Amino acid sequence: MFYTDGKLQYPVRVETPDPVFARALQQAIGGVEGEIRVAMQYFFQAMGARGNPKFRDLLLNTATEELGHIEMLATAVALNLEGAPVGEQERVAADPVGGSILNGMTMKHVLSSGLSAMPVDSDGVPFDMSHIYASGNIAADMTANVTAESTGRVLAVRLYNMTNDPGMKDMLQFLIARDTMHQNQWLAALEELGGATEVFPIPNSHPQSEEKQEFSYSYLGFKNDGSEPAPGRWSEGQSIDGNGTFETRNMEPQGEEPNLGRARPGTGAQAEQL
Amino acid sequence: MFYTDGKLQYPVRVETPDPVFARALQQAIGGVEGEIRVAMQYFFQAMGARGNPKFRDLLLNTATEELGHIEMLATAVALNLEGAPVGEQERVAADPVGGSILNGMTMKHVLSSGLSAMPVDSDGVPFDMSHIYASGNIAADMTANVTAESTGRVLAVRLYNMTNDPGMKDMLQFLIARDTMHQNQWLAALEELGGATEVFPIPNSHPQSEEKQEFSYSYLGFKNDGSEPAPGRWSEGQSIDGNGTFETRNMEPQGEEPNLGRARPGTGAQAEQL
Amino acid sequence: MFYTDGKLQYPVRVETPDPVFARALQQAIGGVEGEIRVAMQYFFQAMGARGNPKFRDLLLNTATEELGHIEMLATAVALNLEGAPVGEQERVAADPVGGSILNGMTMKHVLSSGLSAMPVDSDGVPFDMSHIYASGNIAADMTANVTAESTGRVLAVRLYNMTNDPGMKDMLQFLIARDTMHQNQWLAALEELGGATEVFPIPNSHPQSEEKQEFSYSYLGFKNDGSEPAPGRWSEGQSIDGNGTFETRNMEPQGEEPNLGRARPGTGAQAEQL
Amino acid sequence: MFYTDGKLQYPVRVETPDPVFARALQQAIGGVEGEIRVAMQYFFQAMGARGNPKFRDLLLNTATEELGHIEMLATAVALNLEGAPVGEQERVAADPVGGSILNGMTMKHVLSSGLSAMPVDSDGVPFDMSHIYASGNIAADMTANVTAESTGRVLAVRLYNMTNDPGMKDMLQFLIARDTMHQNQWLAALEELGGATEVFPIPNSHPQSEEKQEFSYSYLGFKNDGSEPAPGRWSEGQSIDGNGTFETRNMEPQGEEPNLGRARPGTGAQAEQL
Amino acid sequence: MFYTDGKLQYPVRVETPDPVFARALQQAIGGVEGEIRVAMQYFFQAMGARGNPKFRDLLLNTATEELGHIEMLATAVALNLEGAPVGEQERVAADPVGGSILNGMTMKHVLSSGLSAMPVDSDGVPFDMSHIYASGNIAADMTANVTAESTGRVLAVRLYNMTNDPGMKDMLQFLIARDTMHQNQWLAALEELGGATEVFPIPNSHPQSEEKQEFSYSYLGFKNDGSEPAPGRWSEGQSIDGNGTFETRNMEPQGEEPNLGRARPGTGAQAEQL
Amino acid sequence: MFYTDGKLQYPVRVETPDPVFARALQQAIGGVEGEIRVAMQYFFQAMGARGNPKFRDLLLNTATEELGHIEMLATAVALNLEGAPVGEQERVAADPVGGSILNGMTMKHVLSSGLSAMPVDSDGVPFDMSHIYASGNIAADMTANVTAESTGRVLAVRLYNMTNDPGMKDMLQFLIARDTMHQNQWLAALEELGGATEVFPIPNSHPQSEEKQEFSYSYLGFKNDGSEPAPGRWSEGQSIDGNGTFETRNMEPQGEEPNLGRARPGTGAQAEQL
Repeated sequence: MFYTDGKLQYPVRVETPDPVFARALQQAIGGVEGEIRVAMQYFFQAMGARGNPKFRDLLLNTATEELGHIEMLATAVALNLEGAPVGEQERVAADPVGGSILNGMTMKHVLSSGLSAMPVDSDGVPFDMSHIYASGNIAADMTANVTAESTGRVLAVRLYNMTNDPGMKDMLQFLIARDTMHQNQWLAALEELGGATEVFPIPNSHPQSEEKQEFSYSYLGFKNDGSEPAPGRWSEGQSIDGNGTFETRNMEPQGEEPNLGRARPGTGAQAEQL
Repeated sequence: MFYTDGKLQYPVRVETPDPVFARALQQAIGGVEGEIRVAMQYFFQAMGARGNPKFRDLLLNTATEELGHIEMLATAVALNLEGAPVGEQERVAADPVGGSILNGMTMKHVLSSGLSAMPVDSDGVPFDMSHIYASGNIAADMTANVTAESTGRVLAVRLYNMTNDPGMKDMLQFLIARDTMHQNQWLAALEELGGATEVFPIPNSHPQSEEKQEFSYSYLGFKNDGSEPAPGRWSEGQSIDGNGTFETRNMEPQGEEPNLGRARPGTGAQAEQL
Repeated sequence: MFYTDGKLQYPVRVETPDPVFARALQQAIGGVEGEIRVAMQYFFQAMGARGNPKFRDLLLNTATEELGHIEMLATAVALNLEGAPVGEQERVAADPVGGSILNGMTMKHVLSSGLSAMPVDSDGVPFDMSHIYASGNIAADMTANVTAESTGRVLAVRLYNMTNDPGMKDMLQFLIARDTMHQNQWLAALEELGGATEVFPIPNSHPQSEEKQEFSYSYLGFKNDGSEPAPGRWSEGQSIDGNGTFETRNMEPQGEEPNLGRARPGTGAQAEQL
Repeated sequence: MFYTDGKLQYPVRVETPDPVFARALQQAIGGVEGEIRVAMQYFFQAMGARGNPKFRDLLLNTATEELGHIEMLATAVALNLEGAPVGEQERVAADPVGGSILNGMTMKHVLSSGLSAMPVDSDGVPFDMSHIYASGNIAADMTANVTAESTGRVLAVRLYNMTNDPGMKDMLQFLIARDTMHQNQWLAALEELGGATEVFPIPNSHPQSEEKQEFSYSYLGFKNDGSEPAPGRWSEGQSIDGNGTFETRNMEPQGEEPNLGRARPGTGAQAEQL
Repeated sequence: MFYTDGKLQYPVRVETPDPVFARALQQAIGGVEGEIRVAMQYFFQAMGARGNPKFRDLLLNTATEELGHIEMLATAVALNLEGAPVGEQERVAADPVGGSILNGMTMKHVLSSGLSAMPVDSDGVPFDMSHIYASGNIAADMTANVTAESTGRVLAVRLYNMTNDPGMKDMLQFLIARDTMHQNQWLAALEELGGATEVFPIPNSHPQSEEKQEFSYSYLGFKNDGSEPAPGRWSEGQSIDGNGTFETRNMEPQGEEPNLGRARPGTGAQAEQL
Repeated sequence: MFYTDGKLQYPVRVETPDPVFARALQQAIGGVEGEIRVAMQYFFQAMGARGNPKFRDLLLNTATEELGHIEMLATAVALNLEGAPVGEQERVAADPVGGSILNGMTMKHVLSSGLSAMPVDSDGVPFDMSHIYASGNIAADMTANVTAESTGRVLAVRLYNMTNDPGMKDMLQFLIARDTMHQNQWLAALEELGGATEVFPIPNSHPQSEEKQEFSYSYLGFKNDGSEPAPGRWSEGQSIDGNGTFETRNMEPQGEEPNLGRARPGTGAQAEQL
């Protein structure tokens, strides 16, 4: 169960409203790198967490924080939309300056939401909940969370570079810091699960004897001329999971060209296919 | 540029066609954990790779392999659909066995594709390319790839447990092995980028002096009663990136309740809001 | 069965084509507040209308009108796109005026539709038919229709404020009037169904004895500090459905923290979760 | 900012796990009538609420409750998936009973989430945030909320009729009661805004002198043979908003057949169109 | 403007309701091969038709017919859902027959629409209007329409093979006949536009001197071993558009490996990429 | 199985980077007329090809080429994004020129991909794999491919007209030429399948005796006033499939107004509907 006090986790202020920056901020709300995604991802991971309950607690606690981040960003969007062009005289294209503001906006900010935030990305595309990765495997979930916070912090840094509004820069410094913590936090969870040699390959509950081990640590090359792909840490030395040794080889097809034969009558194929 | 020989990377055979398992296999083609996703993700990451060209090579080479995995799985779907019920007498619900086969199928396998694979998941939902994570940050991309291969191997193991067809089990043992390699490979790339202390926080090009560092390594609690969240590796000790020390504290709102004031005339609000 | 005469329900003329306004008009075609939505919503509600056939007639009749509104708006989009920049010299960004026109357009108007309307919203996002609410409950459908016409009229007013083209203003005055009627019409249908005290709670066919009535008219508070939420008509007095009396109280969790226990072998979890 | 205690608003228990009912419950999580929708809708409406702050409070308070409803339903899904078929011997289609269970499941419950809830509907389709209606017009928002709770209660009643598990029936009686309150609550908010004659037509800030008033209260007929559509409360008497009198008439086209003329060179049309 | 008489273009009757067949019929309503698609595609093509107005007339007239086909199919869905299992005792999985019916249904038919049609496909996925192809090029539109009617008739034939209900078979024989006509009709329109040698390549308004003509009629091979791809009508003889002669050759890359260089500071890349 | 050499099929160079043109190019990558679509469409058609294996070869060979086209276009996007505005001083709206560049961009090019290509269209909408038409009927597939290459060439011509960069014009001349070939190639495949009189109506395996032949070659009119629709090749003369003679007649409804009767108890309808 959740509670609220309606206050903001961190102050949000905008000195100079900028409707185009409001559009940019939408990416941090409804983009795949955004806060709806992490809030809902941690929430659903918590809902499915089996095993040690400390992970459910960790996930639910952080989901709760992220809900407050959506709140901060939605407030920032609304404040940046103060004074945005809504009337005819403010937007006609013959006026390049006025025109360019509307042109650069999420037009739905004017037409659909009445100058407030929406659960869409910076091009007005609604967030789609298929991006909530919650696999039922606690380690796979942690890797997904490291990813989410990595792309999230990359996004926050890009937004930070895009504005010079002191209020927005201050808010983004806070969010960048939280992303730093959250990257570290999920990495720490992986360490608590045993670190790379215990965790990987995910899932670690499948016996590796039931995989084709001659292909488990081979960096396979698919160059047309049979040359080797560029070497790296991935092509020699001990594997990161500690269970094998990397090698490189070029792939030859092991299977034949498939032939599905003729179509069955009654399947809507052309007569020639039957 | 790409080339093909039309052959399969690894043999695909089905001893006993099973149309419901064909539906399950669709998750490995068009699910978010599936092969279209990794093929296209590595491809687009390669297209945007800046810096050391060995990463472009690594990404493009692996993307090329994954295209062949879609091919294998699509062949497996078609073979499992041999003999699937298409006519009236094969499917009527009054016949519980026949009925239950169609009931468990992706119905579009009969109606749309004529008994072959589609770029949809195991519930018939088409793959949506917003799942292609390619951030322009090479380390963030590597974490996304570890995630993709982790959820991918979890899925492959689940499919493996769901069938007892010797051909399918053999094919899945191959794919599970490749997922083992690919998890290790992307982890190795992170190691080549310097390992956790160099890579994180991502992006490492943003000066941490420009984040609110008092929040960078704090595990914040959001418990309603002010109790501390469950401790773990994430609540004390050195941070994984080596740049700080984890601490725990309960969050107090730093900001006030936002008030957007009154609506502007002309914005379509109710008169009471103006 | 449907018929057409190819004519417009109301004249559509554009004095000064404005490609950015063409983009704005797309929201009224393919936005969630738009005409495809109402046309298809009333159509599918009619298709599922059970009980008194006058409601099917009402729904189908209005659906037929709305098809004509799509026609009007699509014509308006095409007329506003007359003269839109399609060639290189018309759009280069170094020319701020020319550039800003293309920048503000739905780019697919140039690239995909050849200067005509598309079933997309003002940010180029295609309409998704999951927005067709047709519940099989006639009263729930009527509330959905009041909503659709309310957001629809809000949108039409916003478009009206955004243009000063006399033709467009005239057309929008017509559409705003029709939205006035349609709001009233669906409210009238609710009145014909008995008004608030008969209609609510929807569905009125479920015996209220089979709900937890101690929670049926309580405005519950979720404030972190236990303070009461802001009072209003919803917190005291007779309920609108006439079946209870509003009260306010703070919520205490009635349930415990859930614990799903350990994961089952074979489900792809980590070994630690088993 | 939000807080949690990790407990459930109301107890959730399942006496006999039923994986097909788990699929049905998904509609109440990720369907358009579900709890993600109302939680996020009230949240975003609160974020954009301008004018009297009591509405922001009302919206945010109720959003907070709805988050707890997702939590309850997600727990119910996981509990219903206990013992669901995951292995080969549990699901083969030759066994009609075992087969029919998997056939009726959201297959992603086995393959993607590892037997826990997902933000998808009962056919496995992910929730799409375009369903969050938050218009910036407080009255339009309230009508959207009445709709959401009406279709929500219809859904809850259908789920209630579909199960005979005592735990599930108990939980659903609670949720049905809350939907009763929430329907009443949003209707009460409309009353507080002045009731039908003050609120409608929405938005009430647009002067009705700027609409084509001869069409504002006319029920127009579109019958092919010129017959009148079925009469009702909507065809005569005072309009619900109190501003006019309903009348009925058959529509004649007021506009001509549109003719867009010839295509412009350079627009990719066929030569015949130029 | 549109009109209706509420009657069906062709009688729809169902002798033995079959809820699983109702699901199958959904593909013909909301599938990509279905009737919403053709109705809306022809409608939007008509809206954008420039040049000879007879094509607008043809498109609008046929769009009007297709609206009536949605009506027929939606009626067929509702009739097939008569008696579908909605209550607990009708659906429990322990009863293989009853269970298998619900299992094979679009579950939203019970939960969302109350036993009537929805704008979704046979797996419950909503129709997405991006499938409305209306290019502004009349010939490209005609090819899209031939495709739509070809996949549409394939689907109708598959549905026909899947049922033995005399009413459904009769209705489908009508729809199959209309698809025959519509395939022929759009092919006839291409003939009226001049036939293959005048129409192709589409758009015929682009001067072929402004394409790399050495690649305009070459069937290029991409075999890994340099072998030629399988020959056919496409590899020799006059081209279908009459403007060239087919030839076959193996492709060699004409370009080098791209190198995007280093990332720019401030773009959120890792330091190593700068 | 696939191979690569990492080189480009045709050289890609950009003399003057143009970030707005990068947005336009996205339509050719992730638009419905774009290269992901054709690559994946031919691939999945190949995977399901039954009957003469030469068609599988043709499809797979061309799919392989199209993968290389995505590569070319993705490179072109990245090159056009060189120097795009990412920092605050480059984008503020008060600077009309700088502002207009960002305004016209896919904002995710800055925020999500770090100045490289994405699998989205020119309005930032992700590609959705439901556009992969692969029907299992080889002739229907060929018509879909003619359509794809027709809209693809229309798009390429529009892009060609929109730029004057010599590098981009050169690349587009190559792609336009390949579209010429591919249109011809799929038309040639239809000729190899027997030409119009053998191929149509698709599927040709359904006996025409099992369709309502009195409607198979009738151009039906749906004019409100009973006038005939505009005549053309489609209204008289031999049908294109050679199996009938076109005629024109006005449609009269053959069916009655449907009446679904009353709702069943327990289906969530209002009491009035029962």
